[in-house]
Amino acid sequence: MKKIVIIGGGTGNFVTLTGMKKYDVDLTAIVSMADDGGSTGILRDDLGVLPPGDVRQCLVALSNSSRLMRSLMNYRFENGNLGGHSFGNLLLSALEKVTGSFEHAVEEAGRILYIRGKVLPVTTNKVRLQMLLERGKKLEGEKQVYLSKEIDKGYKDISLVPSPQVNPLVIDSIRNCDLVVISPGGLHTSIIPNLLVEGVSEAICKTQAKKVFVVNLLNRIGQTTDYKVSDYINEVSKYLGKDVFDYIFVNSKSPPEKLMKLYADQGQLIENDLKDDPRVVSADFLGSFAEKAKTDLIERSLIRHDSDKLAMELMKVVHHL
Amino acid sequence: MKKIVIIGGGTGNFVTLTGMKKYDVDLTAIVSMADDGGSTGILRDDLGVLPPGDVRQCLVALSNSSRLMRSLMNYRFENGNLGGHSFGNLLLSALEKVTGSFEHAVEEAGRILYIRGKVLPVTTNKVRLQMLLERGKKLEGEKQVYLSKEIDKGYKDISLVPSPQVNPLVIDSIRNCDLVVISPGGLHTSIIPNLLVEGVSEAICKTQAKKVFVVNLLNRIGQTTDYKVSDYINEVSKYLGKDVFDYIFVNSKSPPEKLMKLYADQGQLIENDLKDDPRVVSADFLGSFAEKAKTDLIERSLIRHDSDKLAMELMKVVHHL
Repeated sequence: MKKIVIIGGGTGNFVTLTGMKKYDVDLTAIVSMADDGGSTGILRDDLGVLPPGDVRQCLVALSNSSRLMRSLMNYRFENGNLGGHSFGNLLLSALEKVTGSFEHAVEEAGRILYIRGKVLPVTTNKVRLQMLLERGKKLEGEKQVYLSKEIDKGYKDISLVPSPQVNPLVIDSIRNCDLVVISPGGLHTSIIPNLLVEGVSEAICKTQAKKVFVVNLLNRIGQTTDYKVSDYINEVSKYLGKDVFDYIFVNSKSPPEKLMKLYADQGQLIENDLKDDPRVVSADFLGSFAEKAKTDLIERSLIRHDSDKLAMELMKVVHHL
Repeated sequence: MKKIVIIGGGTGNFVTLTGMKKYDVDLTAIVSMADDGGSTGILRDDLGVLPPGDVRQCLVALSNSSRLMRSLMNYRFENGNLGGHSFGNLLLSALEKVTGSFEHAVEEAGRILYIRGKVLPVTTNKVRLQMLLERGKKLEGEKQVYLSKEIDKGYKDISLVPSPQVNPLVIDSIRNCDLVVISPGGLHTSIIPNLLVEGVSEAICKTQAKKVFVVNLLNRIGQTTDYKVSDYINEVSKYLGKDVFDYIFVNSKSPPEKLMKLYADQGQLIENDLKDDPRVVSADFLGSFAEKAKTDLIERSLIRHDSDKLAMELMKVVHHL
């Protein structure tokens, strides 16, 4: 069975894993651990636990348990002191306390949810994302970076503080897999934070596996304003050390006009300036919008990749391996 | 397989079920739904859910899942807004929200925990315990009743408000069982609240099953001060309609002097004034105190029944059925 490693944050990995789970492949999700917003941020601050939110999304994506169990994991309490907490985050935090380690908590939650595949936090050290902007302003924490509208004006540095040790299983799985996929997601908040953990970029460069980069559907205004496909590749390659990609997945289908208007102040379509690059796989990756926004995953981004379309193109790559 | 129905609150039922689970019998726990203290009370108030705490304890007692899962269910968050909440209570509350009903939540939690047997809330209506004291003072809610030191001076009335409908499965299980056991526990807070639900007392009186009353180890000062064994039987029989018991389990062994001193302002030993009553089974039911107080169940009451000793005497009754 082909071994596939999927790297990213919560929502992007969720989409990729949900599609790929339907195929007979061996999946490992590597998850950024810099999240400090929302329910996850409160749990970090109040309980001193590691950020559960992104891991939860990957576990749910890989889960073979009942629909009820998956709804339960994503259920958010609405009122009182619990308001905003997703049940799955509480499960992971309680398991971390009871087992004494986040790795064991993730393993145990995986068993409870009958997951197929593995979910690996990129590090199990407590880290914060930090970004120093060109004009001297310092952004502390992933949430601040995520909300900033000044990143496109340039930044001097991005780092994890304190510098974390990599989860050794992450290095093993990258070394020994057949395909590495960088999921869509926030470039500076979900993708690069994985590459800032020492050893990860080196492993990606050295592995014999083929590498796919899935370009986002939209630029985020203030973050990646006017980025073209090549800018994404260049930015990520800066942290990898070089451009290692064998395939670059670019969406070719525009979202409906109506939806683009809704997003006008947040996002813009990404121009494909690499049309002649043979590595580019240009296809319709657009998710359908007919479905109701049922889970918080969907609510967060209505314009998103379609799990099945993405997986289908990835499987074409797998069949060529 | 003999069918045994165990009636009580959380902690008393936990002790009885933990012992009985080791035998080849068909167990059903009937649980009082008047709890409104602690984590349970906050969840009732904030989320409008039914009280999960007592049900949780019964589920854990009947669980065949790993020790880790059982620890997880009883794990209490220590800090922040989650402080004091047990994870199992949050699981039941989230399941109630996701499934839309407390019955389904209990069923589903039972599946997650691989329980042997059944746990039935005595009602699934939202109720509060209310007690009108002799001198006119009204106690509102189980917590107020539990904390009162004036109940032994007499009370005019105890009731559930608003008057609830019984869970029909409770009536079925009492009618069709071979043995009914009233667990130890707070007389006015855990035992009688079950009998205040219309239909329960009648079912206990009419069933062909044998009936066991397990007398507490200690009187609670201000609640059952100076109660003798006969007072317990009389008080419960008032709500049953008559004295229906075939067996009355009375502890014969005194706790260590040191421990009694610790409890001096809270409890006192219960005098057995029914020594000549052939229904009385007088035996050493005292739990051992060597074990560390690991779970909140044990912390709440260090002087408690020993699960195994209690189950062993109950099984002697079962073998005579």
